[in-house]
Amino acid sequence: MKVKVILLPMGREVYLRKGVNLRAGLIELGIPIDSPCGGQGTCLKCKVQISGVHQGCTELEQEKLSPEELRNGWRLACQVTAEEPGKIHLPETDVLWKALAFNPLGEQISLQPNVRRRNFHINEPAISDQRGDWDRLAEDLEIGETVPLFIDLPLLREFSGRLREWNFQGEAILAGNNVVALEPPNSRLDILGVAIDIGTTTLAGGLVDLETGTVVALDVSLNPQIVFGADVISRISYIQENPERRKTLQKKLIRALNQLLLRMCRIAKKKRERIFEATVVGNTTMLHLLLGLDPVHIALSPYVGVLNRSLSLRANELGLHIHPLGKVHALPSVASFIGADTVAMILATKLHQTSVPKLAIDIGTNAEIILSTGSGMLAASAAAGPAFEGGRIKFGMRATKGAISMFHATPSPKYAVIGNSIPQGICGSGLIDLVSELFRVGVLDPTGRLLLAQETSSPINPDLAQCVRIRGAEREFVVYTDKTREITLTQRDIRELQLAKGAIRAAIEILMKEANINISDITEIFLAGVFGNYIDPEKAHTIGLIPPFPKERIHFIGCGALNGCLKALINLDERQQANDIARQVSHIELSSRADFQDTFVRYLKLGRKYGVRAQHSTN
Amino acid sequence: MKVKVILLPMGREVYLRKGVNLRAGLIELGIPIDSPCGGQGTCLKCKVQISGVHQGCTELEQEKLSPEELRNGWRLACQVTAEEPGKIHLPETDVLWKALAFNPLGEQISLQPNVRRRNFHINEPAISDQRGDWDRLAEDLEIGETVPLFIDLPLLREFSGRLREWNFQGEAILAGNNVVALEPPNSRLDILGVAIDIGTTTLAGGLVDLETGTVVALDVSLNPQIVFGADVISRISYIQENPERRKTLQKKLIRALNQLLLRMCRIAKKKRERIFEATVVGNTTMLHLLLGLDPVHIALSPYVGVLNRSLSLRANELGLHIHPLGKVHALPSVASFIGADTVAMILATKLHQTSVPKLAIDIGTNAEIILSTGSGMLAASAAAGPAFEGGRIKFGMRATKGAISMFHATPSPKYAVIGNSIPQGICGSGLIDLVSELFRVGVLDPTGRLLLAQETSSPINPDLAQCVRIRGAEREFVVYTDKTREITLTQRDIRELQLAKGAIRAAIEILMKEANINISDITEIFLAGVFGNYIDPEKAHTIGLIPPFPKERIHFIGCGALNGCLKALINLDERQQANDIARQVSHIELSSRADFQDTFVRYLKLGRKYGVRAQHSTN
Repeated sequence: MKVKVILLPMGREVYLRKGVNLRAGLIELGIPIDSPCGGQGTCLKCKVQISGVHQGCTELEQEKLSPEELRNGWRLACQVTAEEPGKIHLPETDVLWKALAFNPLGEQISLQPNVRRRNFHINEPAISDQRGDWDRLAEDLEIGETVPLFIDLPLLREFSGRLREWNFQGEAILAGNNVVALEPPNSRLDILGVAIDIGTTTLAGGLVDLETGTVVALDVSLNPQIVFGADVISRISYIQENPERRKTLQKKLIRALNQLLLRMCRIAKKKRERIFEATVVGNTTMLHLLLGLDPVHIALSPYVGVLNRSLSLRANELGLHIHPLGKVHALPSVASFIGADTVAMILATKLHQTSVPKLAIDIGTNAEIILSTGSGMLAASAAAGPAFEGGRIKFGMRATKGAISMFHATPSPKYAVIGNSIPQGICGSGLIDLVSELFRVGVLDPTGRLLLAQETSSPINPDLAQCVRIRGAEREFVVYTDKTREITLTQRDIRELQLAKGAIRAAIEILMKEANINISDITEIFLAGVFGNYIDPEKAHTIGLIPPFPKERIHFIGCGALNGCLKALINLDERQQANDIARQVSHIELSSRADFQDTFVRYLKLGRKYGVRAQHSTN
Repeated sequence: MKVKVILLPMGREVYLRKGVNLRAGLIELGIPIDSPCGGQGTCLKCKVQISGVHQGCTELEQEKLSPEELRNGWRLACQVTAEEPGKIHLPETDVLWKALAFNPLGEQISLQPNVRRRNFHINEPAISDQRGDWDRLAEDLEIGETVPLFIDLPLLREFSGRLREWNFQGEAILAGNNVVALEPPNSRLDILGVAIDIGTTTLAGGLVDLETGTVVALDVSLNPQIVFGADVISRISYIQENPERRKTLQKKLIRALNQLLLRMCRIAKKKRERIFEATVVGNTTMLHLLLGLDPVHIALSPYVGVLNRSLSLRANELGLHIHPLGKVHALPSVASFIGADTVAMILATKLHQTSVPKLAIDIGTNAEIILSTGSGMLAASAAAGPAFEGGRIKFGMRATKGAISMFHATPSPKYAVIGNSIPQGICGSGLIDLVSELFRVGVLDPTGRLLLAQETSSPINPDLAQCVRIRGAEREFVVYTDKTREITLTQRDIRELQLAKGAIRAAIEILMKEANINISDITEIFLAGVFGNYIDPEKAHTIGLIPPFPKERIHFIGCGALNGCLKALINLDERQQANDIARQVSHIELSSRADFQDTFVRYLKLGRKYGVRAQHSTN
């Protein structure tokens, strides 16, 4: 018996076994509920707000939660069993986006990883069987394999002694046809993999138990290369001035990835040395910088990089701190501005397997738009800039504790902060909410101009009106203020958002035109990105980021690139599909099109369609 | 038109194109005639003694050679054209054994190396063709390949810039399915490979131009590990006392191999970085020590090492100074005492492809005896000791300049020295000659005892008789004497030789017994080893090393293991055959046989059969 439960705020439907512990059940679904006490009911980190699901509460909950919390439906996930259908509002912490990130479509991904454990118990040598120790083991392990196995020399060095200590039993860990570890019998140590999405601004990682397919940690951090340029072109220019800088950028990136790995391992209480494989995606330039390849020709017509193919190498060739014999597999790119992140996004949304038109939009510093026509895929890249990830925004920050991630203008201005802490800045979803809400209530006009109280076409709630002010030459909206700080949304911030959404929307329009497909032909839209919260389709419409489209068929899937990268980590067939996708996608080069600039300018305006909204009637 | 020529002293028949320059023709056949002047007739290093082949001599020869030399048939190979059948006595220098070493059976080995050059000229990128630079090249190179190509990261790092400098043309060097070098168009730099035989006492190497199959240098040096024990068991014991010593032994070996490589490259005027692959053979223990593997269990019943399988790795994993991305391929072993050297010896003699019984004997510190029954192969290993390579012999030395390599007792004592220099010691072939000749004339009795003049059963040439003397408690035979030095053959040296030949002969007898094959069933015998000269079958009979057998069907093939290793370097099919051979050979463990010790003791005596010779009638 299964119980249907809706996870909020993203509205994802999941099915839990009736009677399952809620914390355990959610973790099983790949939603890592932060619970350092391991479900003892002592850390209170797994606090969720439920309606339905379970009646009554335990004594422990009565003791640990306040009467008001209990009245409002707050419970400890570790104490609740799923009994009936209902809704669960996940904790509004930085765990939130993580819950959104993995397997957003609730798909069943079968476990077929490249790295796997093989138990062995081999015959002892005898005068009548003088095969070498490795020969003996290899012949045993090769049963069921299609190709001969290889072993790295360091593993052979102490092998004979250990094999005898272990009484000719043990565990071999294979990565592809490579033996990468030999361990005593019944060690049952973790076999982990990591999926990494290297964004221009944000690094995202997912740590996976490769024996269960469970995502045990998800985390993000800043790409430290941003100090050398906010977008790929400025980083390439920086390198071009002095080729030595390529090494610097690579080094910084790898150090940041190692820190991210370390943090994820700490969260999950795992060891980095137990990670045997990393799958990596990113835009083509980021993959070049990771590998230390020369990206210069990416920026020069005809925009061709060193490689688009997938590449497998040893982690120690990059200095990535996983198991010393671990592997790195970089997924393939389509072209210089349609990277492996897009390929992974397609894997995540299955756009390569649809027979009806669908649209996917990956919103990052470079946004990629993929239109599946039902018989093929077109993709375009739009330089959105880093606004959605907090870049070039005065109080911009990435989606972590302290980021304003939601905003409502009515009935009175109200924001939500990741981690329920004092606000530190505004993340991508907060930015979209602010612009969309301020535009909806008339504080912004369709050109994106912030209006003072006396300038608005209709009366504005005084609470809101008083937040608009002029500082120096610039208008701004005060989002938060206390004794020590102010957080504002400036006129320039709004312009950044307009540039970003204009570029993305223009790309969508051009792709549809190219494929001769109308928005009404499209059956689903997938929105992806690392924003800090889900994007409310209503708000995406309000600012004109996407064409008018039925809300219920818009899916926000979190970090689509990381999702696809995780699929390629867990399943070799998905990994092979990535290679096929890279060859199937047709790249539409926007910069070479005369109609792009006009379309872009037209969509700079806010509003559902060409800046049209009843309230303003500007058009 | 071809001209049949017999090469002396080994009696090998070769065919030269009529009219070909003799030096060039011999080099083409893989016999590296030392000729630093490049055939200008100035260095005189290519001096050979001919009969037939060519009538008359050039003015240059008349000027450079003495009238006596010319009378005795001495000529400069670079001045002679092959006109008619005849005989060529190769120069008695340390080049000699090299001439013997490669392709002793005159077989045509087709060129099918693992490393090969591919020229490319690829399409330039365009907006309509945005494949990455490497994708573009890989797709071009993969035409005709059966598996996808891989490239090492360092090669990709500067690839895009260079490709443009080179105008999208160039040369790729592939090792297997790996691109290991990318070079400008028309570079035509050497593609070299090296075959290495790691003996317990002697290291032998052959440097090959992999585009022509020509052996451009052959050389030997001492295995520096001998200071840690003359045989494999004593080296294993040494390591067993302290595992750290394994590293020391590996380091010393690799340093010596690097020196050997350097010397061969100097001889051939080649660069070590142009060597892209090394094939390696050796006995199982030596391969363990090369790879840094624990050999301890080789010495303990049931005598099983870490691996017998072939192993491919990168040269830099071992610190071998060839091209940084070059490969090392260690051939497979049969068992702990039937190593890859034996497998290579079988490749060289084609014992795996015969349908009639044949016998091959590889005489080294460990001797291996292989009996092909016509339907299968048996092999045994005998601890001969290092006598044949100069070890444990008072004036023993390896086959290099200054070594006495031949000895005749009658009509008067006469020796030959490698390099025609002042004698420094005695090499393997010299030792066999000495013992065999002294026994033939009665200075040694069948038990191997050196006889003083008064003890001989028949009168001895006084020139010889006066050379036998007693020093301290030991008898010895004075081979050479001058003002500063004496070179002697001691009673103990003779005992060493007896132990060696006894072990080898006993192994031969046991194998024949095991296979139920008589010596009369055998059609050919191959003798191999690094002796400094060929072994005269007559002398091998005289001391009883091999059973009585028609001389003309005994072939001395030089370093058989190196020959096979060279075949596996040049031809991938031969390399695959090596893997098959390793599985096909049945190992006969002599130490576990009750009849071995008796047979060994019986064959300690000198003489054609059980110490029987007419002159002595001791039996």
